[in-house]
Amino acid sequence: MIEDGEWAQSSDLLKDYQDPGTPPGTLRPADGESGPSRVIVASYTADTIDVREIADRTELDGLRGDGRIHWVHVIGLADVALAEHLGGVFELHALALEDVLTLGQRPKAEEFDTTLFCIVQHLAYRRDGLEKVQISLFLGADFVLTFQPSGSDLLAPIRERLVKGRARLRQKGAGYLAYAILDLIVDAAFPALEALGDHLDAIEEGILEKPDQDDIEKLQSARRELLVLRQVLWPQREVMGRLAREEHELMPEDVRIYFRDCYDHAVQALEVSENFREMASGLLDIYLTSLSHRLNDVMKVLTVISTVFMPLTFIAGVYGMNFDRQQPWNMPELGWRYGYLGFWGVSLAGIVSMLWLFRRKGWL
Amino acid sequence: MIEDGEWAQSSDLLKDYQDPGTPPGTLRPADGESGPSRVIVASYTADTIDVREIADRTELDGLRGDGRIHWVHVIGLADVALAEHLGGVFELHALALEDVLTLGQRPKAEEFDTTLFCIVQHLAYRRDGLEKVQISLFLGADFVLTFQPSGSDLLAPIRERLVKGRARLRQKGAGYLAYAILDLIVDAAFPALEALGDHLDAIEEGILEKPDQDDIEKLQSARRELLVLRQVLWPQREVMGRLAREEHELMPEDVRIYFRDCYDHAVQALEVSENFREMASGLLDIYLTSLSHRLNDVMKVLTVISTVFMPLTFIAGVYGMNFDRQQPWNMPELGWRYGYLGFWGVSLAGIVSMLWLFRRKGWL
Amino acid sequence: MIEDGEWAQSSDLLKDYQDPGTPPGTLRPADGESGPSRVIVASYTADTIDVREIADRTELDGLRGDGRIHWVHVIGLADVALAEHLGGVFELHALALEDVLTLGQRPKAEEFDTTLFCIVQHLAYRRDGLEKVQISLFLGADFVLTFQPSGSDLLAPIRERLVKGRARLRQKGAGYLAYAILDLIVDAAFPALEALGDHLDAIEEGILEKPDQDDIEKLQSARRELLVLRQVLWPQREVMGRLAREEHELMPEDVRIYFRDCYDHAVQALEVSENFREMASGLLDIYLTSLSHRLNDVMKVLTVISTVFMPLTFIAGVYGMNFDRQQPWNMPELGWRYGYLGFWGVSLAGIVSMLWLFRRKGWL
Amino acid sequence: MIEDGEWAQSSDLLKDYQDPGTPPGTLRPADGESGPSRVIVASYTADTIDVREIADRTELDGLRGDGRIHWVHVIGLADVALAEHLGGVFELHALALEDVLTLGQRPKAEEFDTTLFCIVQHLAYRRDGLEKVQISLFLGADFVLTFQPSGSDLLAPIRERLVKGRARLRQKGAGYLAYAILDLIVDAAFPALEALGDHLDAIEEGILEKPDQDDIEKLQSARRELLVLRQVLWPQREVMGRLAREEHELMPEDVRIYFRDCYDHAVQALEVSENFREMASGLLDIYLTSLSHRLNDVMKVLTVISTVFMPLTFIAGVYGMNFDRQQPWNMPELGWRYGYLGFWGVSLAGIVSMLWLFRRKGWL
Amino acid sequence: MIEDGEWAQSSDLLKDYQDPGTPPGTLRPADGESGPSRVIVASYTADTIDVREIADRTELDGLRGDGRIHWVHVIGLADVALAEHLGGVFELHALALEDVLTLGQRPKAEEFDTTLFCIVQHLAYRRDGLEKVQISLFLGADFVLTFQPSGSDLLAPIRERLVKGRARLRQKGAGYLAYAILDLIVDAAFPALEALGDHLDAIEEGILEKPDQDDIEKLQSARRELLVLRQVLWPQREVMGRLAREEHELMPEDVRIYFRDCYDHAVQALEVSENFREMASGLLDIYLTSLSHRLNDVMKVLTVISTVFMPLTFIAGVYGMNFDRQQPWNMPELGWRYGYLGFWGVSLAGIVSMLWLFRRKGWL
Repeated sequence: MIEDGEWAQSSDLLKDYQDPGTPPGTLRPADGESGPSRVIVASYTADTIDVREIADRTELDGLRGDGRIHWVHVIGLADVALAEHLGGVFELHALALEDVLTLGQRPKAEEFDTTLFCIVQHLAYRRDGLEKVQISLFLGADFVLTFQPSGSDLLAPIRERLVKGRARLRQKGAGYLAYAILDLIVDAAFPALEALGDHLDAIEEGILEKPDQDDIEKLQSARRELLVLRQVLWPQREVMGRLAREEHELMPEDVRIYFRDCYDHAVQALEVSENFREMASGLLDIYLTSLSHRLNDVMKVLTVISTVFMPLTFIAGVYGMNFDRQQPWNMPELGWRYGYLGFWGVSLAGIVSMLWLFRRKGWL
Repeated sequence: MIEDGEWAQSSDLLKDYQDPGTPPGTLRPADGESGPSRVIVASYTADTIDVREIADRTELDGLRGDGRIHWVHVIGLADVALAEHLGGVFELHALALEDVLTLGQRPKAEEFDTTLFCIVQHLAYRRDGLEKVQISLFLGADFVLTFQPSGSDLLAPIRERLVKGRARLRQKGAGYLAYAILDLIVDAAFPALEALGDHLDAIEEGILEKPDQDDIEKLQSARRELLVLRQVLWPQREVMGRLAREEHELMPEDVRIYFRDCYDHAVQALEVSENFREMASGLLDIYLTSLSHRLNDVMKVLTVISTVFMPLTFIAGVYGMNFDRQQPWNMPELGWRYGYLGFWGVSLAGIVSMLWLFRRKGWL
Repeated sequence: MIEDGEWAQSSDLLKDYQDPGTPPGTLRPADGESGPSRVIVASYTADTIDVREIADRTELDGLRGDGRIHWVHVIGLADVALAEHLGGVFELHALALEDVLTLGQRPKAEEFDTTLFCIVQHLAYRRDGLEKVQISLFLGADFVLTFQPSGSDLLAPIRERLVKGRARLRQKGAGYLAYAILDLIVDAAFPALEALGDHLDAIEEGILEKPDQDDIEKLQSARRELLVLRQVLWPQREVMGRLAREEHELMPEDVRIYFRDCYDHAVQALEVSENFREMASGLLDIYLTSLSHRLNDVMKVLTVISTVFMPLTFIAGVYGMNFDRQQPWNMPELGWRYGYLGFWGVSLAGIVSMLWLFRRKGWL
Repeated sequence: MIEDGEWAQSSDLLKDYQDPGTPPGTLRPADGESGPSRVIVASYTADTIDVREIADRTELDGLRGDGRIHWVHVIGLADVALAEHLGGVFELHALALEDVLTLGQRPKAEEFDTTLFCIVQHLAYRRDGLEKVQISLFLGADFVLTFQPSGSDLLAPIRERLVKGRARLRQKGAGYLAYAILDLIVDAAFPALEALGDHLDAIEEGILEKPDQDDIEKLQSARRELLVLRQVLWPQREVMGRLAREEHELMPEDVRIYFRDCYDHAVQALEVSENFREMASGLLDIYLTSLSHRLNDVMKVLTVISTVFMPLTFIAGVYGMNFDRQQPWNMPELGWRYGYLGFWGVSLAGIVSMLWLFRRKGWL
Repeated sequence: MIEDGEWAQSSDLLKDYQDPGTPPGTLRPADGESGPSRVIVASYTADTIDVREIADRTELDGLRGDGRIHWVHVIGLADVALAEHLGGVFELHALALEDVLTLGQRPKAEEFDTTLFCIVQHLAYRRDGLEKVQISLFLGADFVLTFQPSGSDLLAPIRERLVKGRARLRQKGAGYLAYAILDLIVDAAFPALEALGDHLDAIEEGILEKPDQDDIEKLQSARRELLVLRQVLWPQREVMGRLAREEHELMPEDVRIYFRDCYDHAVQALEVSENFREMASGLLDIYLTSLSHRLNDVMKVLTVISTVFMPLTFIAGVYGMNFDRQQPWNMPELGWRYGYLGFWGVSLAGIVSMLWLFRRKGWL
């Protein structure tokens, strides 16, 4: 959740970090997580599938090596003992487990002896801004292990496709399941980008109609969200590129061809976000020109008023002078029969000609 | 079509996308398409050519392997069954067919077992902005398959060249036909760029003559179109570069030499669009300086008026004071014979010298 | 010629292009060219040289293979039949000939079977802006073929060096002649850059002295010329780099060493033009600060005038009030002996102290 | 310490340097250092550990080759003789020792015959700005040598982990100790970045609430600190990347896997600092828009006041004129029964309608 | 010398160039050089050294091959015959000699058959701006040849180190001498950068205290000097990188290790100059905000004055009206006993409440 008080904070750009000097591979519960974790296990072959939620972690012990592929999905990152237990069962590296429990990681893919480890970020645009949820995935020969922090199960659509009768998803091994999961997460960026795009359009409309300080704060917040997006989408693209390109025994050739598609989507999401950044920085310029326009309008009103009334006030002042009327040359106009009417005639003529001039200059 | 209401929307930068979690290779009609598709088939050897429009898709079944080269052009992307049928006849990969039916794709070239698959975007500048039309092309040993969404047949000029007696186009196999089609699409960017350049020139002229908020909206819309252009032209260049560089059995050496030319054009189109972007961002600066100029002009008028009339009004006010004329030192000027004339003399001298000063300062 | 009406147009950034769909290798006269072409042939060995202008193109037929090196320089690009004839005699590729006849090409170097083909742009700064002239060059084992559009012979200095007794130019084969020609063209950028630099300095001086809208138009025009420059100089550098680096049978090692020098110059020209671009974009900022300065100056004058005269006018207005002097508390000042003098005293003291204050604030 | 007087100076970006022409490898005390150095030696095997502080440098002579790993940590860079002595005992290159004694170095990793030499910068955010402390590290087969300038012992947490019973740190050789030290230093950037982020947030809040010149100075200082950060973090990332990637006999494969983690952190720190830079440059734009807003507000007040009172003052001036009331057409209003009340009626109506107009325009 | 009249000119960015079309290798005296050159020869072995200045160039003929290393340093580039003579004695390539005599070259390193040729630029910050002096260096198996334009001997410190008893410099061959010279020149950038940094700090202080047009000219001049710096430091870094990286028989492995150090310094100098450029462009923004601040201040004064006095002047005008006092409703205030005092009471209350309001708004 990016925006939490009034606008996005700088610290949203930082990952959680342990105190410098902490030994590597030290596990501690992820920030802001508490309570037990949910563990959902799906075990399948091409023909059969068994989905169940596990309460006791020792149920995981006998899973491996029964010829089925197991997908273990863990929701909640507070249970360090569970993470360690999984590490033991599936032979995971301690550094990788530490990364799983540290939120705000940069997306990455790493190879360990028998597993492939990825971290990606699932993006969504909520009412209060962009939300990123860190999904960690371990791929082994016959298992996929995924972790997400607390919240609703983001990978449920995959499990549904898995369950549906005779799904292609069950025919193709653990690598293809990993693809399906990563594809879901990469594609989740598009609705988020669409919502962010609509948000930018709304800001632009607001700026063009009536620019105020509030728009600037919204814009600044949107720019920060775009920075977060970039921080996620750049390395996500890299991760997909590596999976599509590099040969790996866990990723057979016919699965890699699907990652090419996934890579294309990651590139497109990144390009769109870069274009949004450019648009957002263009909006600030537009804001400034809008302000200048308004200032010009205000100044024109002031100038029109001053230009019309200053000379008239001077003339009225002149005929309010008390020069001694005994002297013949002193203010004879005051004695004229139509002096006053003449004064008004001159005044109105002045006003009218000024207004005509300003209209011609386009100031009205 | 980029501009559809008042100005281009952010969402024009996004491609259509399927709901995250949809299985890959799921075919659905392309957005905004409906009704049956037109299928135009041209079958030729170096000496003979036969062009016809096909109503029943089963007519396509016997085409392959008769020694002729077949170019099947499909207009309209709503008929999923047709796409699947073509996929069966020409052995196309399901992921590629999914891309064909998803509009807003990034240009790309991909190799599959027996076919080469390209997506490119045909650009045109219509009355209401930049229009991009997605053309998909499959190249096989003896066939070329092209798809475009509904609209008039964009590839008709190629078919005309094909029909014309003893055309070089018929002498050189399917790869050269694919080149001819891609070359047409790459070159279509130039008239679009020319129109966009004229549009930018018109905006610049407008800004330099009389900057108003409307210019800013036009400029913002043009910048967004340039972002779309870049999104198309960068990968298009890459596609042509790969086709010109990489050896492929479907692209003999003597055809690749033509793609070098095509690549040059793609590079040039890209460079021009990048330069246009730089110019467009320069226009905003010019707009701001124009506004500042105008503000300066308005302020000068105000200052001239104030500087001339404030002192005069003060003097007129002085002689309107009611100091007791009985006291000899109180306002003797009022009793002078030529007091009033003197007042006007001083006033006019003040006005004239002020105006002379301002003219020297260049404020008039 | 970049600037043709009032300022440089966007379309100056576009090359000429044929209608999309035109078959590749279609020759048509270059834009804006007409009339017959001049053909100047120089045939030489180390010891002898024969320079002549040819009227009938069949005179070219017997040239090749007589042991001499032939340099054919063609001025004028309207004569398509001549181009085709040359293509036949020297075995040139149709795509290359099409490029020769299409103006506004990006500089490039291409290898064909027996020839090396380069396009470069000769730059000059004329009274009405930057002028680029497209020079095409074919290098064969025993010939050099050059083309330029109509105009005075740009390569005459090379021919003079060739003719001069015992010139090194004649000792070293066709590759060295090609080097001499390309070196001339690369070096021609320096006087053009110098002129453009002087132009920028003049604009800067104008802006610092007295910024007006005219400077902005000049600056915008100069920036567009710098974009054109970059469009030429980037690929020109690349061309020289390739010629200096890549081994080629037509370019012996001892000639390539000279191209290293040529490449250095191309790099330097490019760097200078990039620095000019940075300076030009800095000038706009300076322009804006100049405008702000002027606005500040105007506002200070207005504020000084208002601050001095508004209080005084108020006081004068006070003593123009008609309160009933019968009441003892009503305006007794009006009856004082030195009331009027006191009023002036106060007024002058006010003026003087205000001006002193403003001088201290640095507003005067 | 970046900020030392009022704001960060340009010279903070420069390293100390010796006079040009000084022979390489010339040792002189580091700038600003004086007094003796502290030398803390930790000698350990997997099972035993001995930590002591050494007063006499000859105690170091017999250390090498006793089968234990020695970590010598030197605090203080004024004692050139000590440095030379260490150079002799551990066979260090003179150039490396010169770098150790020159503060402000760019982080780097260099290989010498038998040692690996790194320079990194430990970052901390103190009350008076960003502080960088240069840590130099030599890694040999059985020793680690570290240097820091005067100050409290930054590496104490590592020594504590080393001493703690059965620490993994003691099981894995000198390379793993070097990793632990470098990891500590890389991770130290995160608290510093967090503090700097909070500082930027505070500046932003200040700007949005009430922009003044002081914010600009703070912002400028923060931008300079970000430049320093980048100068440190870019090469630091490179150093970690090389250590993670390049095979080296002193760095066994199972230690290199830890450097991958370290590299990830270095990348993340760099990305965060780059995003901060972008945010900081965005803040300046926001500052400018805030100023424009305020100017607009001021001008609106001025315009409202002028527009309301100028016409009224004119009318009051009119009825202060002294036209001869004997003439019937001269100022008959003055004799009307309700003239004065009518004047006030008109005035109030004018004021009210003006204010209503301005409210509708949004100026109030 | 960059700054020569009032501010740096664009042409300072251009190198000297010969007329396009001049044959390569044509020697002519360097621009602005005249008179004879000084030639200082140092011939040494590890044990002996002989330094002398040579008047007659034929003394150079017998130098090579006597087992000693010869360092010939030439000051002054007007004597073309001397250059040609040296070219003959040391077998230098004509193109390299041409580069030596052409000032304003880009730093570069080139290999010829038996010599290594470098051009570097010695930077210094003089009272009137940045000064760059072109040093050319030829390295052969047993000689080093250096050239500098007229001026004091920049390489004297090297010669002193050479002469000093048992200098390491004499033990290590010509390559190490070349290193010592290039190291001196690379390090000379640091004092120049320090001076330029101080200059930037002074400009910043000026801008923050009191921005005027003069600061802008100074800033613009500094930015141009930074462009020159970059033009020198980028390729200088490249030169050092090549010398540190590429194996070459004239540069033994143990000398290359020193160039690594030299490369580090070149990188650091470049980074500092890039950071200075960023700071300089930040200064312009600060300048603009300073101007805006000042404008805001001026406008506040104007608005305060107007807001206070306009209503008061209106009221004074009201009581100066001549409504017929015979009518009971006409201006009864004028007849009140304390009317005048009441007027002043209202006026003062108005002034005080306005000032209080403005103070609360922060305008005072």
